[in-house]
Amino acid sequence: MNVTQKLIQSHLIEGKMIPGQEIGLKIDQSLTQDATGTMVMLELEALGIDRVKTELSAQYVDHNLLQTDYKNADDHLFLRSACQRFGIWYSRPGNGVSHPVHMERFGIPGKTLIGSDSHTPAAGSLGMLAFGAGGIDVAMAMAGEPMYLKMPKVLGVKLTGKLPDWVSAKDVVLEMLRRYDVHGCRNTIIEYYGSGLENLSAMDRHVIANMGTEMGATTTVFPSDAEVKRFLASQGRGEDWVELIADAGAEYDLHDEINLSELVPLIACPSSPGNVVPVREVQGRSVQQVVIGSSANPGIRDFWIVSQIVKGKTASDRVSFDVNPTSRQGIENLAAMGTAFLDLIHAGARFHQAGCLGCIGMGQAPASNQISLRTFPRNFPGRSGTADDQVYLCSPETAAAAALTGVITDPRDLEQIYGMNYPQFVAPEKEILNTEMLVPPPTDGSQIQLEKGPNIKSLPDFPELPDRAIVPVLLKVGNNISTDEIMPAGARVLPFRSNIPGISQFVYYMVDETFAERAKVAQKEYGGHVIVAGDNYAQGSSREHAAIAPKYLGQVAVLAKSYARIGWQNLVNFGIMPLEFVNPDDYDTIDRDDEIEIVGMRDALTAGQPIVAKNKTKNLVYEMTHSISPRQINILLHGGVINEFREKLSDRQDLSEDPSISAKQESLADKQDVLG
Amino acid sequence: MNVTQKLIQSHLIEGKMIPGQEIGLKIDQSLTQDATGTMVMLELEALGIDRVKTELSAQYVDHNLLQTDYKNADDHLFLRSACQRFGIWYSRPGNGVSHPVHMERFGIPGKTLIGSDSHTPAAGSLGMLAFGAGGIDVAMAMAGEPMYLKMPKVLGVKLTGKLPDWVSAKDVVLEMLRRYDVHGCRNTIIEYYGSGLENLSAMDRHVIANMGTEMGATTTVFPSDAEVKRFLASQGRGEDWVELIADAGAEYDLHDEINLSELVPLIACPSSPGNVVPVREVQGRSVQQVVIGSSANPGIRDFWIVSQIVKGKTASDRVSFDVNPTSRQGIENLAAMGTAFLDLIHAGARFHQAGCLGCIGMGQAPASNQISLRTFPRNFPGRSGTADDQVYLCSPETAAAAALTGVITDPRDLEQIYGMNYPQFVAPEKEILNTEMLVPPPTDGSQIQLEKGPNIKSLPDFPELPDRAIVPVLLKVGNNISTDEIMPAGARVLPFRSNIPGISQFVYYMVDETFAERAKVAQKEYGGHVIVAGDNYAQGSSREHAAIAPKYLGQVAVLAKSYARIGWQNLVNFGIMPLEFVNPDDYDTIDRDDEIEIVGMRDALTAGQPIVAKNKTKNLVYEMTHSISPRQINILLHGGVINEFREKLSDRQDLSEDPSISAKQESLADKQDVLG
Repeated sequence: MNVTQKLIQSHLIEGKMIPGQEIGLKIDQSLTQDATGTMVMLELEALGIDRVKTELSAQYVDHNLLQTDYKNADDHLFLRSACQRFGIWYSRPGNGVSHPVHMERFGIPGKTLIGSDSHTPAAGSLGMLAFGAGGIDVAMAMAGEPMYLKMPKVLGVKLTGKLPDWVSAKDVVLEMLRRYDVHGCRNTIIEYYGSGLENLSAMDRHVIANMGTEMGATTTVFPSDAEVKRFLASQGRGEDWVELIADAGAEYDLHDEINLSELVPLIACPSSPGNVVPVREVQGRSVQQVVIGSSANPGIRDFWIVSQIVKGKTASDRVSFDVNPTSRQGIENLAAMGTAFLDLIHAGARFHQAGCLGCIGMGQAPASNQISLRTFPRNFPGRSGTADDQVYLCSPETAAAAALTGVITDPRDLEQIYGMNYPQFVAPEKEILNTEMLVPPPTDGSQIQLEKGPNIKSLPDFPELPDRAIVPVLLKVGNNISTDEIMPAGARVLPFRSNIPGISQFVYYMVDETFAERAKVAQKEYGGHVIVAGDNYAQGSSREHAAIAPKYLGQVAVLAKSYARIGWQNLVNFGIMPLEFVNPDDYDTIDRDDEIEIVGMRDALTAGQPIVAKNKTKNLVYEMTHSISPRQINILLHGGVINEFREKLSDRQDLSEDPSISAKQESLADKQDVLG
Repeated sequence: MNVTQKLIQSHLIEGKMIPGQEIGLKIDQSLTQDATGTMVMLELEALGIDRVKTELSAQYVDHNLLQTDYKNADDHLFLRSACQRFGIWYSRPGNGVSHPVHMERFGIPGKTLIGSDSHTPAAGSLGMLAFGAGGIDVAMAMAGEPMYLKMPKVLGVKLTGKLPDWVSAKDVVLEMLRRYDVHGCRNTIIEYYGSGLENLSAMDRHVIANMGTEMGATTTVFPSDAEVKRFLASQGRGEDWVELIADAGAEYDLHDEINLSELVPLIACPSSPGNVVPVREVQGRSVQQVVIGSSANPGIRDFWIVSQIVKGKTASDRVSFDVNPTSRQGIENLAAMGTAFLDLIHAGARFHQAGCLGCIGMGQAPASNQISLRTFPRNFPGRSGTADDQVYLCSPETAAAAALTGVITDPRDLEQIYGMNYPQFVAPEKEILNTEMLVPPPTDGSQIQLEKGPNIKSLPDFPELPDRAIVPVLLKVGNNISTDEIMPAGARVLPFRSNIPGISQFVYYMVDETFAERAKVAQKEYGGHVIVAGDNYAQGSSREHAAIAPKYLGQVAVLAKSYARIGWQNLVNFGIMPLEFVNPDDYDTIDRDDEIEIVGMRDALTAGQPIVAKNKTKNLVYEMTHSISPRQINILLHGGVINEFREKLSDRQDLSEDPSISAKQESLADKQDVLG
């Protein structure tokens, strides 16, 4: 077996490891960050759980650190209280970005991790199986439920050789993006192996695993080898190491190979991580901003190498040279490495608190139509906060070179320009540790009150799926409507993410400003509404608010030609029926304000029969279908995963303990032997 | 003579040093910051000057550092280009807060300084005469014009004794605020003298001079003595020192005395800097945030003492412990002082880039209704960004104590709680300097193009005062309307501060949302409008946009019962006539939309005669007066100070040189002998 298969088999609760089949996995650890974590905590509250069932859950405050009004700071206090209440570690604001901090302090080879952040796969660097997911999927895993996904294919990437001077881990993953673009690894787990691994540190592997997400990969996996052992020892956690390597002759579904020795400095041009070219091709372009940091280049090495490059020099006076340390621990170790910190400051670095900052558009927006070089994972258009941004993604070496010269520069040219030798990083044997800012949960949190500021509202209760509905079509939209159009983000709407009643006023606001008001009327007069859509409804970002808020406004069903995967799953999770036209031409016969009657919904779903929707206004009948699994039908009937879980929890408490769960856990204990 | 008199006499171009009489002073230096500086640069452009005439002008980028969209970064590039164009030093973003950086790098005893920031008087710590002012007044000074003010009284404050352990400079100025509250020093210059000065470092004096503004003082002055000599030497500028001390037996208009030995730790309670009580009186209250930094506590000592207090301990886990270094130089010196920087980080500090940050509500908003202790100068309600904030102002010692204990704590109790001795600061003989981030202007900037992002608009041209107007009353307001109601601030409006057409859409928005639209119609149909107001029109903040934007919308005159001083001056500066009812009861007879006819305005102003406004709608006649000086009448006739200056500049160029100016400069050279 390869490493991926060993990790999956040792956590397999349901299904078989056949690509495309649904599997259920036991989840050992979870991580949440503040931008999504507040909703996860509200979901835990709504689920009615007393304490998380994972081996370890950690909540990080790394996204919303600007605090332009009371809402962020209120969220921090809320998260702190929720961590105490539910048994979760609390990483205080400014302690660092979730992924590197989790890796340093909590990551354990052979374990599974789910996180409400798309870069959670970074933990694959330690030989973990780590997934990004929507909030409710993370909440369910924290509640002890399996995580469900379709078994992906495994792409084995053989690494050989050794990176040349001035080329580093970021260039490896940029090479992958050059080959696979942003869609090439969907439904795929990338597993790296081969002799080239010997020359990649655990933190180098973090860089590569982190940005597997950019190729659409389900996750990325590395073996747990001697380097992982060294890394954990340097973190004072040598005892957490277990070896996890592929069996000799292990097979992969797909194959690729990279000779590290042949790589050159690469750069992703605006405005996609997949627009990768050699730095040489774009050199000489004038740069206004350089930003070092983010979970995509989080290691001490990545900051140290920059400090060595800029040492004794000054950032070009047109360039804003921003340094975002990724963790407090990183700052301390850097500051203890000779004059590295002072060298950065003296060269003109704007040295910020530890966190995501500009990587998620929280400040650091570049000037209009100016080039910004960033060591970040993403450069989607406008993500920086500047609509006409020109963001390039590159290695710390390439970024530092531009900071000095003021133009895009191949870092290999620094040898000639400044007579510089490539600095050789030596990792500290033992890192300075700071565990004080990670607050452990009390052993019993049952008496803790959740501390909710005025903008934090408990999740509303949602009704179960009705058997019969006569409701109006409140909106008709075309193809490819995205979750950004269903539930906008941005400075105006994001502050309401812990407040479903508040955020619901913006549902479909980009398409029709009157929607929320009309939905409230329809809810009073008809008990709800439906909407009609074309192909690929709810594509784009995974935000679950694009289902929760319409549900809050009374959405019973969507009648669409087809759905995007995550949006479709979110609808089911929150009890909205994602129906599909059997005859797509029916779409053309419906108009806004038509009255739709659906009868016998519950029975039809249960019996696996088609659902009939009658257009009373036009006197037409539409045959509707769906692709919902039996497990999901049960969720839908309950009006969403929260209601369904609450009932299950109440049943379990009646039975004292569910024997089926305990049997599954036992059988899992046997399987974990494969981790050897 | 006292120090104040020596400073004034050596710069006196017009008037006599008799309290209440208008005087004109030669200005040697200017400072601008980015929140007000963009408008100053646009005014320099509008004035048509080629190069500033001050001995030194410096532009700092310290306020708008969050960059949530393109506007801030565009402003930075614009300011950089304007500095090159007009001959101004450019302090790059993140290089630090204007006041301490200016003191360290440019401050010279005996010189005058004007700054478009109300805390500019901090430079009084070096024996400078330093004023905060509105943008156009700074621009005029940069253009070589005198600064005009009414000669203030001088309050001599005799300092004796020596501060006890755990009591520091902030407590001295808090004691002053306890005595004088926020209004007690208006039209007054505070001059400190006496044996107690020997125990206050130059940076301690900066703390005290900075917050003189909070008492309404015109400025604060310290002598230039041996301590100032030591300070300048530590900055590598020993040659800039000149002695400047009061003559033996010098007299003051007003007198006070503080025995430093008797002071205790003080704190300003919400929500005024004048609400000062001993820390003892409020100890034990739970704290959610502690922030160290700002121009009110900018010295290395202020950060070092905190590092020593928190060393080896951890900030209470409910407290956000934010540290805002005030300059890059400060960071470097702190980091070079043993483990001070590491001690702060390890104790949990969120260590930010150098700048104003939370002090002007740019992030760091505390949680709802939670206590925040700050070493800042101001705690006006809502200034933090949180409407129901509970901000206290205190010394670094008091702030650090609360960070550790989580409650308001008298720092003297740290001895008992932690067995701590009061740390004894020793200033470095030579500070680490970093002048690289201060970019000098080129010797010739005439070919430099101003780099204007899409939100930066040149100042519009304004017409001269008409002789006759028949215009509608577009708005009638009551008493005490503030500049916040005329021209709102806040996240929505502030980004338009470099864009008069953009910001004008918000004029009187808080009072009447339709105003801007109606004004545009009136401008087309009538060529302008007037408004009617009660007493104390345009009180509050000094923002000049409260005059520029109404002028842009065609405001010819305000008909009011009375005016606030700065608002009144801004109206004149931008060519709006501030008329006063001779008979205040006339106010009651005017309504919105009445048509007002004023004829012979120019002649009446020139001749010093009353102005007659005819209410054509009501067929009534109002006699109006004004309190504008002859110098200001000339400005008004020109349609504002910019037009007036442009004409003067053009005349001077015709004459090659204005002999009267050159005569004044010569006579000044003689006067400067008083500086000894």
